[in-house]
Amino acid sequence: MDKQHYKFSTKTVDCYFDAVFSFLEKLVSKEKAVIITDDNIASIYAEKFTGWKVIAIKPGEKNKQQSTVDHVINQLIKIQADRETFIIGIGGGVITDIAGYTASVYMRGVKFAFVPTSILAMVDAAIGGKNGVDVGMYKNLVGVIRHSEFLLYDYSFLKTLPQEEWINGFAEIIKHACIKDEKLFERLENNSLENFRESPEKIADLIKRNVEIKYKVVSNDEFEAGERKLLNFGHTLGHAIENIYQLPHGNAVSIGMVAACKISEEMNDFPTVDSERVIDLLKKYNLPVTLPFGESRRGAVWEVLLMDKKKSGDAINFILLNKIGDAIVKPVSLHQLKDLINQVL
Amino acid sequence: MDKQHYKFSTKTVDCYFDAVFSFLEKLVSKEKAVIITDDNIASIYAEKFTGWKVIAIKPGEKNKQQSTVDHVINQLIKIQADRETFIIGIGGGVITDIAGYTASVYMRGVKFAFVPTSILAMVDAAIGGKNGVDVGMYKNLVGVIRHSEFLLYDYSFLKTLPQEEWINGFAEIIKHACIKDEKLFERLENNSLENFRESPEKIADLIKRNVEIKYKVVSNDEFEAGERKLLNFGHTLGHAIENIYQLPHGNAVSIGMVAACKISEEMNDFPTVDSERVIDLLKKYNLPVTLPFGESRRGAVWEVLLMDKKKSGDAINFILLNKIGDAIVKPVSLHQLKDLINQVL
Repeated sequence: MDKQHYKFSTKTVDCYFDAVFSFLEKLVSKEKAVIITDDNIASIYAEKFTGWKVIAIKPGEKNKQQSTVDHVINQLIKIQADRETFIIGIGGGVITDIAGYTASVYMRGVKFAFVPTSILAMVDAAIGGKNGVDVGMYKNLVGVIRHSEFLLYDYSFLKTLPQEEWINGFAEIIKHACIKDEKLFERLENNSLENFRESPEKIADLIKRNVEIKYKVVSNDEFEAGERKLLNFGHTLGHAIENIYQLPHGNAVSIGMVAACKISEEMNDFPTVDSERVIDLLKKYNLPVTLPFGESRRGAVWEVLLMDKKKSGDAINFILLNKIGDAIVKPVSLHQLKDLINQVL
Repeated sequence: MDKQHYKFSTKTVDCYFDAVFSFLEKLVSKEKAVIITDDNIASIYAEKFTGWKVIAIKPGEKNKQQSTVDHVINQLIKIQADRETFIIGIGGGVITDIAGYTASVYMRGVKFAFVPTSILAMVDAAIGGKNGVDVGMYKNLVGVIRHSEFLLYDYSFLKTLPQEEWINGFAEIIKHACIKDEKLFERLENNSLENFRESPEKIADLIKRNVEIKYKVVSNDEFEAGERKLLNFGHTLGHAIENIYQLPHGNAVSIGMVAACKISEEMNDFPTVDSERVIDLLKKYNLPVTLPFGESRRGAVWEVLLMDKKKSGDAINFILLNKIGDAIVKPVSLHQLKDLINQVL
């Protein structure tokens, strides 16, 4: 096990890499803990969870809504959870978002921690304190920023992670490489999903590097005044299409990154050859680079964009690439954006 | 107008006493502001609100539930409220709780301020950053602690405040006197509700004094590790009976304070003669000192108590009086409390 501390303004988060699940008992009293997970994980790992109080919710982004939070709160009341209760979110990004948000508002805030079980949660969702729920089509429209007490990484959970979830997670890894780490980009080019999936050392090393990228960006700018916005690369259009087209998050972000590369070419002199490298890398990791065929829903995409949290007055702060490994925030007027969307989507 | 600053760890709250509503335009751009109020206030003060965006909700504690927050969020989406939106809660305690909570979670937090229009909101609910909603019978079970940008006190709103709401508000004023201010207690004994209601100077002075008591307690202990708990005097049993007996908050707290005085006699050598002074004062201000007749619902009261946020393991932190103007926190075991409730309720 490899213990690291990540310091934020209000809290130091302990991070246990290469840990085993059973170590959780050393960190939290079983008596006070309540695990929040999804039905899949609860059933696959029923044995691991023996002796722990467990609230299992339906899996999937479409359940990341207030009604699920209401349900979890009613379950917490049922088991008489109090201010001393310690919530542990065990799962992917939907679970860490729901568990962190519920813990932040239950009795005006109880302690919580995460055991991320998907690549996406390990390298992204579990880190940085953002939590919350979607409101209908609108991604993460409601939530707070509050840090977990600790993160426990047990890579053995990845053994049961479906292939599509591996693919999803790599969208955020490629995003990190695009905005911050050219060397990582090259490493990804020189490997494949299978290489990482088959090598416990390689995946452990990759996850830790990505945690460090995310942590560094977030700790420099916890309340998203500047640098943290870069993490939204591919997410502005990604979020807009995710719920409308019912795409997995990583797939939507992948298509969003391709669009952001093209907009970077138009507005930021990003070289076409580098756009092509990004597209090739996404394809290499089995990520989609164009919207699925079918009825165009540009109108709906536009409606959702108007509610984007990054919108400020008549412009949206868009993340563009200068070069691979180097990104900037540029306000793009809604007018301009409408034209660009018609070109790139 | 009399401007004061109240400093908390994360924010300085500006407080405009003796202000007029129209001053609001100087503090917030009408363009960015969204007023959250209730149907009563929206209709009585329709003229004042001309040119402001207004979301009006149904009045009353029974609507202080998540479903109302969901409704407000949908209204905010409809008017394309973004991160620059400034929410202004105008109303009593239900409105300040709902508006503060919604603002704290919408887009992970937008700015907000209050114009409290009831005595209770002016001296209590609008101050200290606590916000949230009830969950069924359970008072304030969900919420966060986050401070408003400013408070604007326009006492002319009190002209339309119903008598029962005046009475309600005085429960919190008497509470402040009981736990912190013997001189205030005496002033209340030497006056009457009518005296205060009829004299703009007297009520302005009384409100400011109460704001200062609450501010001082909260700023000494924002996250309720110690002194702030004292503000819960009368509220442990008060909250338990409020939603079960459908009592106005002040009425429930009044009965709760009588019970807390009796428990203080039993457990804390609080003089019986002082209990009688408290009871007499509550009666003088038309507050109830016993539960309404009818079916006893002690069982339900007990169920709600078990979910009290002040519960910690097998005990509840109960607020007891040493003498008038001086209170302490004492853990009372659930076992002991059950006996005491049978005696005092």
